[in-house]
Amino acid sequence: MRILFLGDIVGRSGRDAVEARLPELRRQLRVDLAVINAENASHGFGLAPAMADSLFAAGCDVLTLGNHAWDRKELIGHIGGAPRIVRPLNFPPGTPGQGSVMITLADGRKAMVANVMGRLFMDALDDPFRATQELLSRQRLGTTVQAIVVDFHAEATSEKAAFAHYVDGRVSLVVGTHTHTPTSDHRILVGGTAFQADAGMCGDYDSVIGMGKEGAMARFVRKMPGERLQPADGEATVCGLFVETDDRTGLARTVAPLRLGGALSQTMPDLAAV
Amino acid sequence: MRILFLGDIVGRSGRDAVEARLPELRRQLRVDLAVINAENASHGFGLAPAMADSLFAAGCDVLTLGNHAWDRKELIGHIGGAPRIVRPLNFPPGTPGQGSVMITLADGRKAMVANVMGRLFMDALDDPFRATQELLSRQRLGTTVQAIVVDFHAEATSEKAAFAHYVDGRVSLVVGTHTHTPTSDHRILVGGTAFQADAGMCGDYDSVIGMGKEGAMARFVRKMPGERLQPADGEATVCGLFVETDDRTGLARTVAPLRLGGALSQTMPDLAAV
Amino acid sequence: MRILFLGDIVGRSGRDAVEARLPELRRQLRVDLAVINAENASHGFGLAPAMADSLFAAGCDVLTLGNHAWDRKELIGHIGGAPRIVRPLNFPPGTPGQGSVMITLADGRKAMVANVMGRLFMDALDDPFRATQELLSRQRLGTTVQAIVVDFHAEATSEKAAFAHYVDGRVSLVVGTHTHTPTSDHRILVGGTAFQADAGMCGDYDSVIGMGKEGAMARFVRKMPGERLQPADGEATVCGLFVETDDRTGLARTVAPLRLGGALSQTMPDLAAV
Amino acid sequence: MRILFLGDIVGRSGRDAVEARLPELRRQLRVDLAVINAENASHGFGLAPAMADSLFAAGCDVLTLGNHAWDRKELIGHIGGAPRIVRPLNFPPGTPGQGSVMITLADGRKAMVANVMGRLFMDALDDPFRATQELLSRQRLGTTVQAIVVDFHAEATSEKAAFAHYVDGRVSLVVGTHTHTPTSDHRILVGGTAFQADAGMCGDYDSVIGMGKEGAMARFVRKMPGERLQPADGEATVCGLFVETDDRTGLARTVAPLRLGGALSQTMPDLAAV
Ligand SMILES: [Fe+2]
Ligand SMILES: [Fe+2]
Ligand SMILES: [Fe+2]
Ligand SMILES: [Fe+2]
Ligand SMILES: [Fe+2]
Ligand SMILES: [Fe+2]
Ligand SMILES: [Fe+2]
Ligand SMILES: [Fe+2]
Repeated sequence: MRILFLGDIVGRSGRDAVEARLPELRRQLRVDLAVINAENASHGFGLAPAMADSLFAAGCDVLTLGNHAWDRKELIGHIGGAPRIVRPLNFPPGTPGQGSVMITLADGRKAMVANVMGRLFMDALDDPFRATQELLSRQRLGTTVQAIVVDFHAEATSEKAAFAHYVDGRVSLVVGTHTHTPTSDHRILVGGTAFQADAGMCGDYDSVIGMGKEGAMARFVRKMPGERLQPADGEATVCGLFVETDDRTGLARTVAPLRLGGALSQTMPDLAAV
Repeated sequence: MRILFLGDIVGRSGRDAVEARLPELRRQLRVDLAVINAENASHGFGLAPAMADSLFAAGCDVLTLGNHAWDRKELIGHIGGAPRIVRPLNFPPGTPGQGSVMITLADGRKAMVANVMGRLFMDALDDPFRATQELLSRQRLGTTVQAIVVDFHAEATSEKAAFAHYVDGRVSLVVGTHTHTPTSDHRILVGGTAFQADAGMCGDYDSVIGMGKEGAMARFVRKMPGERLQPADGEATVCGLFVETDDRTGLARTVAPLRLGGALSQTMPDLAAV
Repeated sequence: MRILFLGDIVGRSGRDAVEARLPELRRQLRVDLAVINAENASHGFGLAPAMADSLFAAGCDVLTLGNHAWDRKELIGHIGGAPRIVRPLNFPPGTPGQGSVMITLADGRKAMVANVMGRLFMDALDDPFRATQELLSRQRLGTTVQAIVVDFHAEATSEKAAFAHYVDGRVSLVVGTHTHTPTSDHRILVGGTAFQADAGMCGDYDSVIGMGKEGAMARFVRKMPGERLQPADGEATVCGLFVETDDRTGLARTVAPLRLGGALSQTMPDLAAV
Repeated sequence: MRILFLGDIVGRSGRDAVEARLPELRRQLRVDLAVINAENASHGFGLAPAMADSLFAAGCDVLTLGNHAWDRKELIGHIGGAPRIVRPLNFPPGTPGQGSVMITLADGRKAMVANVMGRLFMDALDDPFRATQELLSRQRLGTTVQAIVVDFHAEATSEKAAFAHYVDGRVSLVVGTHTHTPTSDHRILVGGTAFQADAGMCGDYDSVIGMGKEGAMARFVRKMPGERLQPADGEATVCGLFVETDDRTGLARTVAPLRLGGALSQTMPDLAAV
């Protein structure tokens, strides 16, 4: 299965870039499943239902969230009827929405996408390791499901790496989100799971993780309240990664980063190698 | 000036890889200044003086530290006589050692290297922005000094980006350390400063940020004390970046990542392009 | 039921004071149930089994723990056979020991004691509110059990107060521990549960929360490693509170603080009023 | 000198209680200096200038702040002309207002009041110990100033105790604020400085640190955004302490807690003993 994952969309600049590039990316990479983290899509904070619809229309299959899941409160009432928008699995019982979704491709293959939140330097939630363990105990990769993608939304690289090794061999891909900075540690772990500590954001990198530089700097230097942070509006870099899995095992054959447009160095998966 | 920076050396595996590769890297890239973060060189915790000597002998010019600066207590008494070992600038007044060093190259050019620590999700220290401001107020890039390198040792990508923009145009390079994961956001900021949020570690990546997987996972899952964490001992990836600056301005002309050996995808600066 | 609760015993000074005073306190206050937090009993860190035995011999019925539960690793193997030593309820499934214990008094009345840990500014654990909810769902206060005591081991007063209101009317007493500082907010909440945000420690208050002043101050000022922290060894103040409940409802009739010996102002429950 | 200190005023309930009781308290206790923390006076968040005026009119001499200093942005422009409103001393250089004020009593005696913020579990600020050291280096207690009061606004009892011992013998009183919970550890330290880890709040205690119970509980349990927190509006307890100092040394002779009205146990300094 050919999987495209894009990191946190930040504001209009990020949305525009993703919607402009996604159709062509799907064709070019013959993508079977496109998953995008959209927790910052709406002006940097949350995901308005209309923007989710627009991203689905552009070719996204599943949208994931994170600590900003409910910044746009409209989503709370909307998510129950929108199973392809996935909120963190380890939110408390009773939280609206689901922490994972099973997608059936047109050719009948099945893929599960989960969104899980780390705890180190983050809000207190239930154990992401055990929550994932319970989810995975109901699946058999390569049998009941051809691919499993986990968006592990977390701050600390230690927790991200520990989590990836914990599920190594039982999921197709663990990809981190939340730091809004792509890492170059993409690799296939010893058990066959593809891993990258952070996908990076789809947003303007001439910024502080997607938000305007002046306001963000002032928060660190002056320790005074200022204007509300605004998303930077320069050209976004679309950041993410591409994974091809073996349907018989669900494990990864290749993993390659992708960075298109904007301020970062450009890279596309080598189609010949895939 | 041609500057090589390598990220946190972790344990024997990291030291061996750096010492084996550094001489050839210096020749190949015609490096003028080699700076390496060594806060985890000694079994993952701190830097023993003898290991510092060995790294200097292998061709390192300056060693930087971080939150693990004093894990090997022998360094406290040693650092006063070892000015090329630089500890965080914003440690309290009265702390042994210095937060920056001025290096004079064989050809007379001068380079300053500083080590600064962030505060978000880190220990409480004095303001890294103001400490750097004061340091820079005594220099004029391109005039009193040909290059200034700042190793910003911090957890949060937001603080790293805010810091880099804060000194943009006043230093040659801001490179983050501490997360032990290389980022692919290397770029030259609008003011001419090269930036990469994290250099990554020089260590075995089949690990949890350089430490053995089992012990590190247990800390997240079982919440029980176990054996002391041990550095992973597989082949290290030497991670860092290469920057070429314009001596007349001190600003960056090129920035390129470097990853050699071990589990990560390999990359070397394109010598033709430099 | 007449319940005595004493806060975190710190080191030899705290142990000696508790063991010396407990027999007389039991007689004087006609105590039915004595519960003591002992997470710092062994030189400030953890609880050695022999010291637990000594505290039980002095008249303690139940010992509770906290974040220092496993600092003395001998306890890990011992706790399974020592049901009156209670570790935090919301430790991960599979953790040795239990998070609550049911005690049957000589006259047949039953009391449950639980130890629960907060999460704000503490280590990441499972939700203490839900864990307590599940525990309480199996009991009916005043029917299946005459009294329920919860030692809520936490840092933040907001979490302590929120927790107390959450279980108000369903337990006899919520008493905080961990800050090593007694609070004077003891009261009976609107639903009938007695509450005090922190019991305070049984230790020498001419200290920094029980540990020697010089070493503790140096940690804040110099940010350098020093000698290992040692418990202060001056005379301890025995700190805690006394609650009388109505056996038919399990709710509190009176709550009164107790501070005996050492540097703090002295207070004893007014026996006439009880 | 006879000093009354009251802890964080929370909302209308707290303001009303303080303004109603302060005139009588001043007479009854023959107060020379009344200092009140008002960081939550305006609907729980910040201090509007008009409310400061009202508190001064009721007999307050100095108002202190904390992490909520700028929640009411009108104060930023107002504080420069209102020297008896004191913001944290260790806010960054250039911050409006001052971190201390020198008050001259009608009889010519002088008292200094400072507001200092801790860092453990709080926002990153410059070192409160060193900032206080610098402030104190310009005074000589008992000579240049008859009394020095420090409101140490902090979360952790360890930092509060370490700070108090650090300045013991050099100031008249260290009183903690911020936890909104009064402690019963009031005492005179070995060097002669009075200390209480927290003054408690002036607010409705049938709440979660002054805010409505339902909203505050939901934040811990449901992890969902809800209504903005509202101050509880039941009768407030006026919480604080009373200290009498020796003008020749500036050190404390007596320290006694005060709790009046509302849900907490009532206590007034024993006038005969003072
Ligand atoms: Fe996030
Ligand atoms: Fe995000
Ligand atoms: Fe570090
Ligand atoms: Fe490191
Ligand atoms: Fe504790
Ligand atoms: Fe404790
Ligand atoms: Fe407050
Ligand atoms: Fe506060």
